[in-house]
Amino acid sequence: MELKLDTGRRERLGLEEAIFCSHKSDEQLATILRQHAEEVRACLLTRLSAEQFARLPAIFQSALDYDPGSATAILNGPDPCGSAARLAIVTAGSSDVPIAREALRTLAFHGVHAEVVFDIGVAGLWRLLERIDELQQFPILIVVAGMDAALPTVIGGLYPGLVIAVPTSVGYGVAAGGNAALNTLLGSCAPGIVVMNIDNGYGAACAALRALRIADR
Amino acid sequence: MELKLDTGRRERLGLEEAIFCSHKSDEQLATILRQHAEEVRACLLTRLSAEQFARLPAIFQSALDYDPGSATAILNGPDPCGSAARLAIVTAGSSDVPIAREALRTLAFHGVHAEVVFDIGVAGLWRLLERIDELQQFPILIVVAGMDAALPTVIGGLYPGLVIAVPTSVGYGVAAGGNAALNTLLGSCAPGIVVMNIDNGYGAACAALRALRIADR
Amino acid sequence: MELKLDTGRRERLGLEEAIFCSHKSDEQLATILRQHAEEVRACLLTRLSAEQFARLPAIFQSALDYDPGSATAILNGPDPCGSAARLAIVTAGSSDVPIAREALRTLAFHGVHAEVVFDIGVAGLWRLLERIDELQQFPILIVVAGMDAALPTVIGGLYPGLVIAVPTSVGYGVAAGGNAALNTLLGSCAPGIVVMNIDNGYGAACAALRALRIADR
Amino acid sequence: MELKLDTGRRERLGLEEAIFCSHKSDEQLATILRQHAEEVRACLLTRLSAEQFARLPAIFQSALDYDPGSATAILNGPDPCGSAARLAIVTAGSSDVPIAREALRTLAFHGVHAEVVFDIGVAGLWRLLERIDELQQFPILIVVAGMDAALPTVIGGLYPGLVIAVPTSVGYGVAAGGNAALNTLLGSCAPGIVVMNIDNGYGAACAALRALRIADR
Amino acid sequence: MELKLDTGRRERLGLEEAIFCSHKSDEQLATILRQHAEEVRACLLTRLSAEQFARLPAIFQSALDYDPGSATAILNGPDPCGSAARLAIVTAGSSDVPIAREALRTLAFHGVHAEVVFDIGVAGLWRLLERIDELQQFPILIVVAGMDAALPTVIGGLYPGLVIAVPTSVGYGVAAGGNAALNTLLGSCAPGIVVMNIDNGYGAACAALRALRIADR
Amino acid sequence: MELKLDTGRRERLGLEEAIFCSHKSDEQLATILRQHAEEVRACLLTRLSAEQFARLPAIFQSALDYDPGSATAILNGPDPCGSAARLAIVTAGSSDVPIAREALRTLAFHGVHAEVVFDIGVAGLWRLLERIDELQQFPILIVVAGMDAALPTVIGGLYPGLVIAVPTSVGYGVAAGGNAALNTLLGSCAPGIVVMNIDNGYGAACAALRALRIADR
Amino acid sequence: MELKLDTGRRERLGLEEAIFCSHKSDEQLATILRQHAEEVRACLLTRLSAEQFARLPAIFQSALDYDPGSATAILNGPDPCGSAARLAIVTAGSSDVPIAREALRTLAFHGVHAEVVFDIGVAGLWRLLERIDELQQFPILIVVAGMDAALPTVIGGLYPGLVIAVPTSVGYGVAAGGNAALNTLLGSCAPGIVVMNIDNGYGAACAALRALRIADR
Amino acid sequence: MELKLDTGRRERLGLEEAIFCSHKSDEQLATILRQHAEEVRACLLTRLSAEQFARLPAIFQSALDYDPGSATAILNGPDPCGSAARLAIVTAGSSDVPIAREALRTLAFHGVHAEVVFDIGVAGLWRLLERIDELQQFPILIVVAGMDAALPTVIGGLYPGLVIAVPTSVGYGVAAGGNAALNTLLGSCAPGIVVMNIDNGYGAACAALRALRIADR
Repeated sequence: MELKLDTGRRERLGLEEAIFCSHKSDEQLATILRQHAEEVRACLLTRLSAEQFARLPAIFQSALDYDPGSATAILNGPDPCGSAARLAIVTAGSSDVPIAREALRTLAFHGVHAEVVFDIGVAGLWRLLERIDELQQFPILIVVAGMDAALPTVIGGLYPGLVIAVPTSVGYGVAAGGNAALNTLLGSCAPGIVVMNIDNGYGAACAALRALRIADR
Repeated sequence: MELKLDTGRRERLGLEEAIFCSHKSDEQLATILRQHAEEVRACLLTRLSAEQFARLPAIFQSALDYDPGSATAILNGPDPCGSAARLAIVTAGSSDVPIAREALRTLAFHGVHAEVVFDIGVAGLWRLLERIDELQQFPILIVVAGMDAALPTVIGGLYPGLVIAVPTSVGYGVAAGGNAALNTLLGSCAPGIVVMNIDNGYGAACAALRALRIADR
Repeated sequence: MELKLDTGRRERLGLEEAIFCSHKSDEQLATILRQHAEEVRACLLTRLSAEQFARLPAIFQSALDYDPGSATAILNGPDPCGSAARLAIVTAGSSDVPIAREALRTLAFHGVHAEVVFDIGVAGLWRLLERIDELQQFPILIVVAGMDAALPTVIGGLYPGLVIAVPTSVGYGVAAGGNAALNTLLGSCAPGIVVMNIDNGYGAACAALRALRIADR
Repeated sequence: MELKLDTGRRERLGLEEAIFCSHKSDEQLATILRQHAEEVRACLLTRLSAEQFARLPAIFQSALDYDPGSATAILNGPDPCGSAARLAIVTAGSSDVPIAREALRTLAFHGVHAEVVFDIGVAGLWRLLERIDELQQFPILIVVAGMDAALPTVIGGLYPGLVIAVPTSVGYGVAAGGNAALNTLLGSCAPGIVVMNIDNGYGAACAALRALRIADR
Repeated sequence: MELKLDTGRRERLGLEEAIFCSHKSDEQLATILRQHAEEVRACLLTRLSAEQFARLPAIFQSALDYDPGSATAILNGPDPCGSAARLAIVTAGSSDVPIAREALRTLAFHGVHAEVVFDIGVAGLWRLLERIDELQQFPILIVVAGMDAALPTVIGGLYPGLVIAVPTSVGYGVAAGGNAALNTLLGSCAPGIVVMNIDNGYGAACAALRALRIADR
Repeated sequence: MELKLDTGRRERLGLEEAIFCSHKSDEQLATILRQHAEEVRACLLTRLSAEQFARLPAIFQSALDYDPGSATAILNGPDPCGSAARLAIVTAGSSDVPIAREALRTLAFHGVHAEVVFDIGVAGLWRLLERIDELQQFPILIVVAGMDAALPTVIGGLYPGLVIAVPTSVGYGVAAGGNAALNTLLGSCAPGIVVMNIDNGYGAACAALRALRIADR
Repeated sequence: MELKLDTGRRERLGLEEAIFCSHKSDEQLATILRQHAEEVRACLLTRLSAEQFARLPAIFQSALDYDPGSATAILNGPDPCGSAARLAIVTAGSSDVPIAREALRTLAFHGVHAEVVFDIGVAGLWRLLERIDELQQFPILIVVAGMDAALPTVIGGLYPGLVIAVPTSVGYGVAAGGNAALNTLLGSCAPGIVVMNIDNGYGAACAALRALRIADR
Repeated sequence: MELKLDTGRRERLGLEEAIFCSHKSDEQLATILRQHAEEVRACLLTRLSAEQFARLPAIFQSALDYDPGSATAILNGPDPCGSAARLAIVTAGSSDVPIAREALRTLAFHGVHAEVVFDIGVAGLWRLLERIDELQQFPILIVVAGMDAALPTVIGGLYPGLVIAVPTSVGYGVAAGGNAALNTLLGSCAPGIVVMNIDNGYGAACAALRALRIADR
């Protein structure tokens, strides 16, 4: 079976090819990687579980830069950039870190460096207040938060730049699955917070890449 | 039609009779008031709309202390107490005020005075930080918040006393109806926040009355 | 009753005071307007229904610039700007226009001019293809769409700038209330689309104002 | 235990017996296959997992034409037909392929050949525009799409024939489970799109078989 | 304000312009009608409430063929056709009649005559059995049913042609709003039933028009 | 840990002790069985998975009459009764059989014999019509049905006795989990059908035992 | 328009014709009443609002026995029966009374007398304990309860007869609409409670009529 | 990776550090334990599954006081207190015990002793009535209940102290996941019951610790 990739994406959108692996069979993944390897094309794989990675042909396992913490892999990615951070990624709790790393890796794959600030949830407000001045220097914040997802609202009231909020599926009971966090963010009292799908660190990074182009015009 | 009231509630629970009026017919309300008036019993009516009040027999309209802002009415209530406030009621936004007033009136009906602190939602964090020291003096806070309902989480991280959180139905889209606020509160990262049904200011006051008894033992 | 407004918002966020009127009583609205009028402060009122507007004191009715099509009113707003459009607002259908106008008015209130392109839903694809080149010149698009909300996905695949998608509550059956449109947008295959609450044209405008600051740094 | 099969279905509906295997025990499946083998009856098994297939008696494993990609198996099916395609099956993404194959196999089991066109989701619109003329030659399209499910709407606006849309459970967050895709399709702005249950490729094929009879009258 | 109508729909899809009126303002409706009247174009208005109709300019009220039972109006429609019915519309209960009439009027607007068979819900099974032979002569049935929506399943097991099922919002409790009926239809055991959005009689008619083209090829 | 069983249930309700095993630990199950074995008390275990059964102490494994098809086990049950069936249990499809067996075993445990009639779903209506006269002789029918759950409605329109409907969790997409079937049954057009929780064969049997007492008065 | 009534219902089910009026037009209601009046047939109308009743032709208004408290009307009903009560109807709160009355009137329409016991919700447990002995004499209880719907569970644990539980839509917040009450009843720990749709007093009465036939065999 | 713990929580709130382990990787857990072990800080781990515990480094396995029944572990906890119980923890059924134990262990970790009363669900009412006098001596009850969750309502009507209700995820069908129990508790007719998230025994204990401070002022 041949796959029809959206090969013109980079030209149209400035975004590289990315493959969402959750629902793909091992055979589909191998086919995709083979196509990219032959053409020496760059490719980002998201939601590639450790089990899926382990079942890939050995040649792809060694060619890929795989990060189990974010379940992402990069093929033919750019060299690590030494440039200054153009935005920051913030998390409320340590369980939100995998999603933040997905965003971080997606940005790096596009050559953009981001600062990371973890574990500053507002149930311990001092942790945010300690870092807020530092965050003010960036034009964009990606804020990752689950459960009550109160952090983006508090940041959105203190910080005038673009806040890209990512709800996470962390939690149990009413919080399980991330819908409570999602709805909190959509209904935030802080004006102008924008929201991504639950656990969508990849999308948040793409949104930031789109927004960074405003400065480049 | 005779109604079977739960007449022993005061003795068993220390809580006065309260009548939830939303689903009651005019005839049912008149019957209830007649029974209480004859026996000179105290009675609190909640969710009594201005339209329902206006359709009551004139004799009851003048006998009742009606507050349209909270849709509550009191029959044979206690004299206003001059005592010090034993707890505080806090709201995030001005749209949450009717629910806060329902709690305030319920407490007053039971002879308990409460401090009120309105409009300190965390999208403008300075408003809370300005008042937090004052709030620390109370053993109980009733916190009323809709939309993102982030205020109780921030308070719960700064304040060691009992936090009774009341979500409100304020908002639109995903926030409409109050379920988003409710779920935010139930999933709060601040440990030990307790939650009431949406718009249940009456219940929050009753919970506070139950908790205040801890001091009286 | 005094209201505690978040007076520092302009300084902190660069966003003017805005009052969400849906759940406010006539008395609350009059109080707010009185405070602003006395201090000659600018103020934007959103979700101010024609009925609410008609019940305001005459002095405020004449002081306000009221637009029934978007249910917004402006007090002490800036003069209409003659500057070039910095972004575009796009709608899928004519029922989405009120929300688009809410965004347009919010931007105008902050001195930012936007181009409007209505009725280009993808069930009649030629309407979008006819306009896409024109849209490419803007760094930001606010895209308002209800029902199937397919328009932002198609735009997001053709246009590299920031796409702020606003689902609307237009429709019936499963589409009623806007949740279907919201979920479509959150789950969009076009990478990096950001999403607002249902019918939140005001928020989309604020997000655009936050993002435009990227160019100003 | 004897099973009561709906033996008259072919005569009444022109549809062969089909067995939905997800909730059936191994013993039930063996009983059903034994009954069909004895009577040399044709039978289609859907949702037969690789694990279930591996646990079947060896005699049935070799008698069945099993396709793991669609989790379908055919007993005593017709010979592969060499006839021209009477309809086309279209998918938005490669994760939708298993459902498309379920439809393809169901049609083949009834002697109907279908063209397949994979991976033409509208986030890369050129892929659809490149194929649309070819699709116009068929009187029926089965369109399989998950996540935002925007493809059937765009097709429905360009193509005048019958569009049978199948939402898939592909995705995560709000898209997980397929309800977002389902609701998008039901609320589509393109008039007259008909919808099947989530992941119901089998049903889409049956609907096509019913509709093809219109030509046979 | 000018509206951008999808003027090429008739050529592309063979479907006339239709205007969904629920969320449109009086001004928008008048603009649309004026454009059509000037160009002597045919137009179908759906969900036009009696209140909306009564507020239209008198000139349009007399030009329109308005049917309050289905809330539809036709401008410049075709002459009533005397041709034989090409399909049948069936309802389970008398409360489903308005939706059936919406389908009937949409078909008539496109010059297609349909037989109507009302009130044959399966809680009184004899009513269906009495009519089933008559229904067998049509290649397509539109079946409208609310509450338990069992009728399409029983028909789908007796009738080999295309069954287009329309759930209705009739009912109370769990049935209110039509989601229970919708889910019943999507999960039907009768193979190949296709489903429309709740109360979408218009869409069912369009689907039938698409399917009838199969015979015309 | 000692468990506090509801020992008086037989006297109060005429229903034997039953233990719902799904959420119980192995240790809790062993404790319960030990208490019953010592007192030679009868006990019914429901939702006892094959895995749980296999982990029980060997002495209990041999003492129990375990039926994997219904996941029930009986300790010290009555001898099999040879009496005539007092009611019938009916299923729509073969996937509904485990729930029907749970009801059958619960009745047998209380000494009541039931007739079973499987696989008469209304998508193949002749199967029901063939058996309906036979069913008319019983005063109570337990009807088990998943997916569209149309069978109880059709039966309820043909049969004047008590219909106890049990929705099942069989199905996929919107049918998965059984809520669609549950809502269909609650909204049934056939008057007076009573409904149990999803998959609650045990409860249906208890309801039948309660109703059979009407004859015994 | 002629309506196709299910005229054989009385013979098949022993239940009289009943008309659910909520979604019917005034014209439909008049047609139905005319048909019944001409044939001197008995008829029960449920959910007939006071507004609908007032709009009926005068001749029907005087012919009907209308009860606004339950929104039911009876045409050509039986004479009031003086016989002993065969079952009891119980309510938790006074807001549940209209639904209880709907059941009471439906039973009376079929010549069955029922005892009524109102206002014995378990938040004031003594009210139930005071009446439980009296309730034990009936073979069937219809128990009507909203909000937490705890009453049927407590009764189901004390009373061995058939418990037909009816959740009501009384309440606000999570209780609004009755789904919380419905789910409580379906998940009740008291074995064998059967459940009706929300607010379905009519259905509960029909279920009781079905069950009473057990005694008549 | 370093973790940023909320180290000031004890001083601000009087609550010790607690780590929610469900979504944490083995590496994160080891890091957290290492930090606490080095500083000889007390730490409570909740939702630590037996599998997670077994994968911890041996040194931490022996240092931790692990309780599999509640999935909690304590590091450097206080000595068991011999003091009198200050509150009671009550469960409806034996499946609710793990959540009750989570509360019990959390209280013990903070030096507070609680009485436990298991298995007094109201489907067997005598079990509660037998213990109610004993419960009256405590100022606070934590009541844990799943399925119908009727116990807290009955207790709330008999007992005047603070009732902290914890819904559990025990059950199947509509009860599965605990939302039915949660909504029952939020909508309880007993005034002033406060509610925690589903299965949140830890939070209930923290709420009790907050409330006990009322006595200490």
